[in-house]
Amino acid sequence: MLSASILRPIPVALLGLGGVGKAVLSQLLSPPLSAQFQLVLIANSRLSLSLPLPAAPITPANFQSILEKHGAPLDVTSVISVLSTHPDAPGIFIDCTGSDAIPAMYPQILSMGVHIVTPNKKGLSSSEALYKAIAEKSFPNTPSLLYGESTVGAGLPIIQTLKDLVATGDEIEKIEGVFSGTLSYIFNEFSKPGGGDVKFSEVVKVAKEKGYTEPDPRDDLSGIDVARKLSILARLVPTVPALPEGYASIPTQSLVPDVLSDASTKEEYLERLEEGDEFFANLREEAKKEGQVVRYVGVIDIKSGKVEAKLDKYPADHALATGLKGSDNIVSFTTKRYSPRPLIIQGAGAGADVTAMGVTSDMVKIYERLAVSRI
Amino acid sequence: MLSASILRPIPVALLGLGGVGKAVLSQLLSPPLSAQFQLVLIANSRLSLSLPLPAAPITPANFQSILEKHGAPLDVTSVISVLSTHPDAPGIFIDCTGSDAIPAMYPQILSMGVHIVTPNKKGLSSSEALYKAIAEKSFPNTPSLLYGESTVGAGLPIIQTLKDLVATGDEIEKIEGVFSGTLSYIFNEFSKPGGGDVKFSEVVKVAKEKGYTEPDPRDDLSGIDVARKLSILARLVPTVPALPEGYASIPTQSLVPDVLSDASTKEEYLERLEEGDEFFANLREEAKKEGQVVRYVGVIDIKSGKVEAKLDKYPADHALATGLKGSDNIVSFTTKRYSPRPLIIQGAGAGADVTAMGVTSDMVKIYERLAVSRI
Repeated sequence: MLSASILRPIPVALLGLGGVGKAVLSQLLSPPLSAQFQLVLIANSRLSLSLPLPAAPITPANFQSILEKHGAPLDVTSVISVLSTHPDAPGIFIDCTGSDAIPAMYPQILSMGVHIVTPNKKGLSSSEALYKAIAEKSFPNTPSLLYGESTVGAGLPIIQTLKDLVATGDEIEKIEGVFSGTLSYIFNEFSKPGGGDVKFSEVVKVAKEKGYTEPDPRDDLSGIDVARKLSILARLVPTVPALPEGYASIPTQSLVPDVLSDASTKEEYLERLEEGDEFFANLREEAKKEGQVVRYVGVIDIKSGKVEAKLDKYPADHALATGLKGSDNIVSFTTKRYSPRPLIIQGAGAGADVTAMGVTSDMVKIYERLAVSRI
Repeated sequence: MLSASILRPIPVALLGLGGVGKAVLSQLLSPPLSAQFQLVLIANSRLSLSLPLPAAPITPANFQSILEKHGAPLDVTSVISVLSTHPDAPGIFIDCTGSDAIPAMYPQILSMGVHIVTPNKKGLSSSEALYKAIAEKSFPNTPSLLYGESTVGAGLPIIQTLKDLVATGDEIEKIEGVFSGTLSYIFNEFSKPGGGDVKFSEVVKVAKEKGYTEPDPRDDLSGIDVARKLSILARLVPTVPALPEGYASIPTQSLVPDVLSDASTKEEYLERLEEGDEFFANLREEAKKEGQVVRYVGVIDIKSGKVEAKLDKYPADHALATGLKGSDNIVSFTTKRYSPRPLIIQGAGAGADVTAMGVTSDMVKIYERLAVSRI
C-alpha cells in the first residue's frame, strides 16, 4: 500500500497562538497530520515566524520563545502571498485569531486561490454583506475552500451534519440546542432535574474559577456567542430569511439582569453578582412547579419563522435536561426525515483540544479533496 | 453566483430497488441532487434498465412497471463498463442490494476507476482478505472512492466522525452503542427505567407487526447485524487487531434462547416464542434489583482488547438507558479528547429515507471531491 501522504504536504500558515492555536500547532506537528501538512508560517497578533527554521524544528514547547526572539512584524498580505506562490500552492490559511480584521480579508485571501480553515466565528456570523462576499469567492463559485466546522460545537460534527441534511434534500423543521459550554455548565449546575437551591451567583463564581467563563463573565452571559453560532447555522438553512446584521439580527436574551445593567466594570459586576440571584431563583422555582428545568438555548424554528437565543424551560426527561452534563453542548435536528424523534449530537463543545480537532479535521477534508485529482 | 452544478452530472448506476434503493432513486430524481447526478442505469436482482428512456423520464411511481416491461437481464460486468466508459466517467456504482456476490466484485469495480457508495454491509464486514482487496483498489491507493456511511447508523454521521477522530490523531478508548433499530425498540419497550413487566415474546410480536423486524425475527435476534456493524467500525480503529473473518471473528450473543434453538422454521419459532420469556424476565429482574436496565449493545473496548455484541446492564440515568427511545440508534465515542464525557450521536438508525440519505450524502462528498479539480 501507498502511504497516506500521496500529495506533497500542503503548506499551512497558522495565525493566532492562543489556547486553540497552540493545540492546532501541536496536532499538526504530530502524526498522522505531520505527513500531510507543512507549517510555513506561524504568527500571533504581533509577530510572525517563517518555517522551517534553518536550525532545529519548532515544537509545542519551544515555538513561543523562538517567535518572541526571531519573529518579524506580522504582515497578513505577505502571508497570503507566501501561501499562493509556494511551490506546493495553494496552501491553507488557518485563522485561530479572535480578530474582526482578518475575517474582513477572507474574500481577498480566497480570491488568491488560498483555502481557509477557521474556528473564528466573526467572518461567518457578521453582516450579510461580508458573508456574501466570502461565499462569492469560495467553493462552489471558485476552487477555494472555506471550512468552519469548529465555529459551532468545536469538534462535534454539527455543521457537516446540517450541510448533509440540506444537500440531500431533507427539510429542516427545527434546530434546538445548548451551544455554549459556559452556559451549559451554569444551568446544568443551577437547575438540575429534582435538584437543589444553589445560588446563581455562586455557580457563576465557580464557573469563573474553573476557567469555564471569559475573563468578564458578561461576555458569556450576554448570549452573543450563542447568537453568533445560531447565525452560522441559520445561514446554511435555505428556508431561513437572510440575517442582514448576522448575530445582531437575532433576538438574544441577556442573562445580565436589569438590576446589574448599570455595573460599569467587570469588578463591580462580579461584586454585585448576588443582586441578580432573586431573578434566577424565581425562574427556577417557576420551572420546578411544572416539573421542568431552565436552560439557555438557541433555536431555529422554521414553522414559526423564529431564530432566537433565550432562556427556556424543558421537562426533566428531555434530552436538553437529563442527558446534558458538565459543559457539554447538545444539538437536536428535527427534520422531515428525522421526526418525531430528532437527530442528536452531544459532547464537549469547548476546549482547546476538541476545537483544534474541528480545525484539523477540516484540513484533512481539504487534503482529501485535493488528493483525488493528483493520484 | 454559479449554480451548484459546476460539474456535468456524474453518471450513476443504482443496483437494488428494495426499500432503501427506492428511497435513493426518489432522492436522486429530486432537487437538489437531480442537478448533480444522472441515473444511467437501474436494476433489481434480475433486470436492468438503461436510462434515460427515449420517451418520458422515469419517476418513483412508474419505474417498477417500466423495468418489468422493458428491462434486460442484469449483467454487472456491463454495468461497470457503462460507468467507466461514459463521456462523463468515472461514474458511481450504488450497491443497494443485500448480495454477497456484488461486494466480491468491488475490487474489480474500483480498479476500473469507478466509485462505489453502498449501504450493503457485506463487503466491509466479511473476510479480512476481501476487505484488504477493496482497500488496495480504493483511495488513497487509487483515485477510486468507496463510501459506506449508511452501513452503520443509516444517515447518522458515525463512520465519518470515527474517521475524523482517527485522522486528527485522537486515541479511541471505547466505542459503545445500540446499533440495531430492532433491538433498540425491543429493549426500550421490554426494560424501561422503573418500567413494567411486559413479556419478551409480546414485545417481539409487536415489533414484527410494526415491521421493525426481518421477516424471520431470528435474523435480528442473532446479533449478527450488530456484529457486522462493529466489524466495520473496528476496522477503522488502528489499535484494534485484525478480524480475519470479519463479523464472524466477533463474540456475539444470540438472543434466541437455548430452549428455542431447536425450532427449525420461522413459524415454529414464532409459535414457541413464549418458551423464552422466563430467560429474559430473569435478566430484567436481576438488572432491576441493581437499578439497571437491559440493553443489547456493541462494544469496542481498546483497554480490554475486546470487541463484542452482547446483552449488558446500564444504570437508569445512562445515555443508553433513559435517553434512548423508539428504535433509535445511539453511539458513544470515548477518546483521549472526549473523556470522561463521550461524544454521542443519536437518532433513527434504520428506515428507508434515512438510510438513503446516508447513501446520497456520500455521493455529494464524491461530487465535491471531483468538483474542486474541475472548476
